[in-house]
Amino acid sequence: MLEKTSPQSDVAEVMADIGRRAKAAARPLAIAGTERKNRALEAMANAIDNRRAEILTANARDVEAARAGGMASSFIDRLQLDDARIDAIITGIRAIAQLDDPVGGVIAAWERPNGLKIERVRTPLGVIGVIYESRPNVTADAGALCLKAGNAVILRGGSDSFHSSRAIHACLVDGLQSAGLPADAIQMVPLSDRAAVGELLTGLDGAVDVIVPRGGKSLVARVQADARVPVFAHLEGICHIYVDASADPKMARAIVTNAKMRRTGICGAVETLLLDRHLEPQVAKGILGDLAAAGCEVRGDDAVQSLLSEAVPASDEDWRTEYLDAIISARFVDDIGGAIDHISRYSSGHTEAVIAEDAGVVSRFFNEVDSAILLHNASTQFADGGEFGMGAEIGIATGKMHARGPVGVEQLTSFKYRVHGAGQTRP
Amino acid sequence: MLEKTSPQSDVAEVMADIGRRAKAAARPLAIAGTERKNRALEAMANAIDNRRAEILTANARDVEAARAGGMASSFIDRLQLDDARIDAIITGIRAIAQLDDPVGGVIAAWERPNGLKIERVRTPLGVIGVIYESRPNVTADAGALCLKAGNAVILRGGSDSFHSSRAIHACLVDGLQSAGLPADAIQMVPLSDRAAVGELLTGLDGAVDVIVPRGGKSLVARVQADARVPVFAHLEGICHIYVDASADPKMARAIVTNAKMRRTGICGAVETLLLDRHLEPQVAKGILGDLAAAGCEVRGDDAVQSLLSEAVPASDEDWRTEYLDAIISARFVDDIGGAIDHISRYSSGHTEAVIAEDAGVVSRFFNEVDSAILLHNASTQFADGGEFGMGAEIGIATGKMHARGPVGVEQLTSFKYRVHGAGQTRP
Repeated sequence: MLEKTSPQSDVAEVMADIGRRAKAAARPLAIAGTERKNRALEAMANAIDNRRAEILTANARDVEAARAGGMASSFIDRLQLDDARIDAIITGIRAIAQLDDPVGGVIAAWERPNGLKIERVRTPLGVIGVIYESRPNVTADAGALCLKAGNAVILRGGSDSFHSSRAIHACLVDGLQSAGLPADAIQMVPLSDRAAVGELLTGLDGAVDVIVPRGGKSLVARVQADARVPVFAHLEGICHIYVDASADPKMARAIVTNAKMRRTGICGAVETLLLDRHLEPQVAKGILGDLAAAGCEVRGDDAVQSLLSEAVPASDEDWRTEYLDAIISARFVDDIGGAIDHISRYSSGHTEAVIAEDAGVVSRFFNEVDSAILLHNASTQFADGGEFGMGAEIGIATGKMHARGPVGVEQLTSFKYRVHGAGQTRP
Repeated sequence: MLEKTSPQSDVAEVMADIGRRAKAAARPLAIAGTERKNRALEAMANAIDNRRAEILTANARDVEAARAGGMASSFIDRLQLDDARIDAIITGIRAIAQLDDPVGGVIAAWERPNGLKIERVRTPLGVIGVIYESRPNVTADAGALCLKAGNAVILRGGSDSFHSSRAIHACLVDGLQSAGLPADAIQMVPLSDRAAVGELLTGLDGAVDVIVPRGGKSLVARVQADARVPVFAHLEGICHIYVDASADPKMARAIVTNAKMRRTGICGAVETLLLDRHLEPQVAKGILGDLAAAGCEVRGDDAVQSLLSEAVPASDEDWRTEYLDAIISARFVDDIGGAIDHISRYSSGHTEAVIAEDAGVVSRFFNEVDSAILLHNASTQFADGGEFGMGAEIGIATGKMHARGPVGVEQLTSFKYRVHGAGQTRP
């Protein structure tokens, strides 16, 4: 590991070399068969299992440094590994081996009047850069997922988890090599300089096809601002639920409480509740009361405060806030039109839900709201690749280009056209 | 039209305003029904038909300025309109009206064990920036295609065709308004400053979702280098044909000549011919002789020169050159492996063809060559959205993100997920 003070030119050189090696590895990887990739994944899982003592020792070193550095206990918790967490990493890699291989899959096929048969088939994207923070398990998750989709990956973990990630990375490389795949298919940036991230974000002279940031808002914001290549990410999940006057009251209460309180720290947790002004006051009161009873702070407009005595006033800032906590903002809107206006103005484009029995309301919501995931009569907490049946995901994207919503193996692919002829020339 | 000397700050202000207006127009446009969009397209076609005298007068002004400026006759030809070319513009718009509306189309649908029904449906991308050169017809083609896919568009044509484009643009706005769609859905940059292009390439503070350059290599190169938003484009089409020893000789001769000589100036024209060293010399000689007989200059390696007396030596530069002319580079390679190596090294990732009867060779070519379009036993000149059955295209993309190959209305869309529940909460 170079010192944090390594000159900029050294960083650029090291990173350029990593880029070249990743690009060179991408070609054999792109044509590697499913069986070979799965063999590598299985060998990775076994290597992690066999070398867990080494991994735990490396992790203890990171944890000790973090403690000495006075990091918060929540930070230490994300960083720390134990046998159960290593088991989860192993299980995760084996689950990725079980996924269908997207590469070579035919997305569409048609025949032209001149007899040309055209197929659109999935191909790997190429080289993916993953920038993450203190969770060492991302090393394994991201490495395995990119491999399954036939992509080379450059991993740049947080310096706080450097030793843990390096120990896990060594197991991934073992797995690649034992299956005859190039070790450079999964590289880890050996620098803790922040400048290394800057280099990666340039795309390393065309070597990197896409960047995936995994971490908090400040990391994602920096990546989105500085990257010169496409980024799959969401900055935040300011998710909304609109409860229409036609909603089934019992369903509305169950869904709103679940969407907020099942897990408050995930990006699909609802942050703002929009209540139809035509709702029976008792129904609105029931929904708000359930939230309060479950321990949620409610920040509301006047009408919400009049229905729930514990509610505190919401400011304009509340409509723009992803709490990731047991707090919800709530207000009344005129109807579905008012809900759509509010969402258009404040949403981060991640996930929104409508609770309604009126088909016209649902149809307007589905047509007019432009977010990655829209749900009808279901909890926003289903915004997850696993819940969508995609298997593991590398994240959720709110951009509209290429990948949107959960980013799983299929979203980590591109496509090409194969045209089958019988001697056709163009007139 | 502001003067070319307008201060940078004015340009930035004008462009920012265009961006805001495009973004505002994108929302009503995204939810506009098919019938309304088609009504606008029909009204545009009629307006162009009715106002052709105005368009021709404006065009005469551009042509006169170009002549006075000493522009080449090929440039004048691209710029000049006449009744036949206006008819072609009108026919093009009507053909776009006939295309299926991609917006709202269901790409995939599945059901989860918990009863959630998930649909992936097409949505407009948002705002598209189109930067083009002297062909005034691009104003109508690009405006109509973006509208069909529900996108707002910002058109920035070359200053040489400014008056022609403005006259056509006025007809497009008429069409929008007569169908009750916002005039800002198709805006034309009213500045001839090059600085306006620079502003557009920044994405106008997030207003622009994608940029499509339409023009020569220097325009595309500038856009690709400077754009801070995704770009759909190809820099060049260095297309290859590999003729395997197993090829049907007659088919190989017909396809190679067609792929080079049908039209030499299009991006799908073949530029490099790779001949299997195991081909019968007579077959290779026939292919090369046909090219020479058709008026094509052949630049070859020693073996090619020994088979064709007219052939001149090829330099390394030839393998990297898109001639767009009656010139082809040709060499022998060891076999399919040698062909794949050559293509991996020199191709621009646009279109490649294999002529072979050996299924194993075809399979390797289809699996291992990573270009947007691969053809077996067919001419590379089929690399075209119309030939693919996609209808009009705005160009061909060689990037791997989002759109690859012909970019038609479907490629100008994104997607979102619609999840239909019955009260599901996440356990």
